Amino acid sequence: MDASATTTLTAADLAGALERYRTDMPLVQCLTNTVVQNFTANVLLASGASPAMVDNPREAGEFARIAGGVLVNLGTPQESTVAAMRHAVEAAGAAGTPWVLDPVAVGGLSWRTEIAAELPGIAAPTVVRGNASEVAAVAGGSGGGRGTESVDTPDDVAEAAQELARRFSGAVAVSGEVDLITDGDRTVRLAHGTPLLQKVTGAGCALGALVAGFAAVSDDPLVAASTATALFTLAAEDAAAASSGSGSFAVGLVDALGALSPEALADRVRIS
Amino acid sequence: MDASATTTLTAADLAGALERYRTDMPLVQCLTNTVVQNFTANVLLASGASPAMVDNPREAGEFARIAGGVLVNLGTPQESTVAAMRHAVEAAGAAGTPWVLDPVAVGGLSWRTEIAAELPGIAAPTVVRGNASEVAAVAGGSGGGRGTESVDTPDDVAEAAQELARRFSGAVAVSGEVDLITDGDRTVRLAHGTPLLQKVTGAGCALGALVAGFAAVSDDPLVAASTATALFTLAAEDAAAASSGSGSFAVGLVDALGALSPEALADRVRIS
Amino acid sequence: MDASATTTLTAADLAGALERYRTDMPLVQCLTNTVVQNFTANVLLASGASPAMVDNPREAGEFARIAGGVLVNLGTPQESTVAAMRHAVEAAGAAGTPWVLDPVAVGGLSWRTEIAAELPGIAAPTVVRGNASEVAAVAGGSGGGRGTESVDTPDDVAEAAQELARRFSGAVAVSGEVDLITDGDRTVRLAHGTPLLQKVTGAGCALGALVAGFAAVSDDPLVAASTATALFTLAAEDAAAASSGSGSFAVGLVDALGALSPEALADRVRIS
Repeated sequence: MDASATTTLTAADLAGALERYRTDMPLVQCLTNTVVQNFTANVLLASGASPAMVDNPREAGEFARIAGGVLVNLGTPQESTVAAMRHAVEAAGAAGTPWVLDPVAVGGLSWRTEIAAELPGIAAPTVVRGNASEVAAVAGGSGGGRGTESVDTPDDVAEAAQELARRFSGAVAVSGEVDLITDGDRTVRLAHGTPLLQKVTGAGCALGALVAGFAAVSDDPLVAASTATALFTLAAEDAAAASSGSGSFAVGLVDALGALSPEALADRVRIS
Repeated sequence: MDASATTTLTAADLAGALERYRTDMPLVQCLTNTVVQNFTANVLLASGASPAMVDNPREAGEFARIAGGVLVNLGTPQESTVAAMRHAVEAAGAAGTPWVLDPVAVGGLSWRTEIAAELPGIAAPTVVRGNASEVAAVAGGSGGGRGTESVDTPDDVAEAAQELARRFSGAVAVSGEVDLITDGDRTVRLAHGTPLLQKVTGAGCALGALVAGFAAVSDDPLVAASTATALFTLAAEDAAAASSGSGSFAVGLVDALGALSPEALADRVRIS
Repeated sequence: MDASATTTLTAADLAGALERYRTDMPLVQCLTNTVVQNFTANVLLASGASPAMVDNPREAGEFARIAGGVLVNLGTPQESTVAAMRHAVEAAGAAGTPWVLDPVAVGGLSWRTEIAAELPGIAAPTVVRGNASEVAAVAGGSGGGRGTESVDTPDDVAEAAQELARRFSGAVAVSGEVDLITDGDRTVRLAHGTPLLQKVTGAGCALGALVAGFAAVSDDPLVAASTATALFTLAAEDAAAASSGSGSFAVGLVDALGALSPEALADRVRIS
């Protein structure tokens, strides 16, 4: 597998997924960190999905059976929410619900690195979304880094991402200046976005939730991860153009997510 | 009791409650879900109240004795916060502190449905605020629904709401396109607001907190719930007129809550 | 020690600290309340730091060893996060990592008052930041108050703050209309800011996080606390001038934190 492998994805594939998303309004269960729950829920609502943050051990599995997609984000694990993640992943696997793993700071911190290794053993994630360090760590590479920042670029870990995608029979989305999304067979690069995304907490986490939403309306994990990434980064470009800093950018990003149509996405996205 | 029963509430009753609220700055204890804590606190502050999110088992009862009103919202229950809710409700009952139950997704998920049945047995809630499905579930009806969305309208559950209000000797506020508020004897309908409220996470949850604040300054639960609803939905109309999407709407809603005077509320509110 | 003791701090000291902060982008670990995690992280990012909310018992100590500064905020303690705080403070003490104590509502609530007494016994905080009531309570005075509000002014507790700073060989920052910062030897007063800061939840909490960030780039706790306070309150003045209420003010504050240069800070700050 060559990291420069061309893709067969088209802008029309992404626009079609966004159309289904807006029609179906997928129910997205988020077991995510407490820092970004609010922003994530508002991003999902603006984009057209329906969020539900059911993250306690007694109800997480119950809900994963009726959710359209499940996000598991390891940003602020606690005993109770990790127990809930186990139940949600198990129920998602049993029900055929797609689930997304966002391995925040995995590789850099010990407990969450164990959890990220354990959960895919319960049921393989449909998509893994993270920065280059996190993806490398999940794939078994060096990883590390300080907090949620990455020291590598997505292309540095392209082969590890492709191998990981094949291992899980899913897709892997590596966020960076140029986003790389692969299912092990096809590899997509998207160069949209703005440096302001690095200045808003939970931008990557919210993208992970969008991926879970698109996985609910598309059987192709590569399409799901690519559409979420394109929608999020194109909306970010719109918001950046109208912002006065990272505060107004975050607000404008939510506005822009609701305003971006499938037609505009198809027209503007550049897939390479 | 007829669901179309007329009300004796006047705009002056609501304006009077808002005047007292602005003067007294009631202290509102919120045991609420982690998704909406920040937005709820900012809504309370903007409206003129003083929020305190004391939700641990060791301090929740202690604080409920000095709070003006207590909100219990079941959006993201965990063992520790549910234990805190029990202490807070018990202390509120003992101290005569009004408390509001917001039964998020009750009827649709098992554990919180049990909690919503248990807490009123400790002390009757002053107000129950939810959507039609949630109110029906608390009342013992079918309920259900997916996540925090409601499949019914408030008027579909008017009789159940009235019966529930009588059972608790309090009020029940059912949120929807036309909000319905009842104390079992009098029933008020308010048709203010905007569809954008459905696109901001925690709009209903923040309204529940406002109800707890108004219950601190009004002995009449119907007045408390109606004033909170009128203030929130009229401010939402102002914010919607100036917004570019759900992100800027949420920000503008907080601004508008602080700007709306008792006089403007009295002038604009339409009670039916 | 006289509460009116003059300071030897200059505007250039503060500008120098901000320059180092912008260059070093300190990694700030926040064990803070769930209400303000998102706002705090965005404030840190906008100001130029790198936030990491690692607050579970299994990883908090591990992370405190690599963090540049640690914030411990007692706003919403739970058993698990308090256990994490103990580990983080112990690791910070062992590694020489500066840590900041924000004793939210200490003096008014029992459990957190015990925690605020216990943690400095593990390792002395570099800075204590709170309102007058909270600082008085940590110092052993009367304290109390309702929730996060203070009934006293910073100058009312100047001597207690000075004694506390000497006890910990650190600094104490008392927030109020006129902020007072002391290391027991030198005492600084800053009169910037806006009443709108009282209308945004977590304004003080976010300031505590900034103090931890500046403590990572300055060996002088008085400089760290003063620079954080000056940056935050000057940015607040900019945001207030352009806001329409507390919602847009909070957004503008984040924008303004990113826009304020060391030169502008030096030019505008008035130290007395």
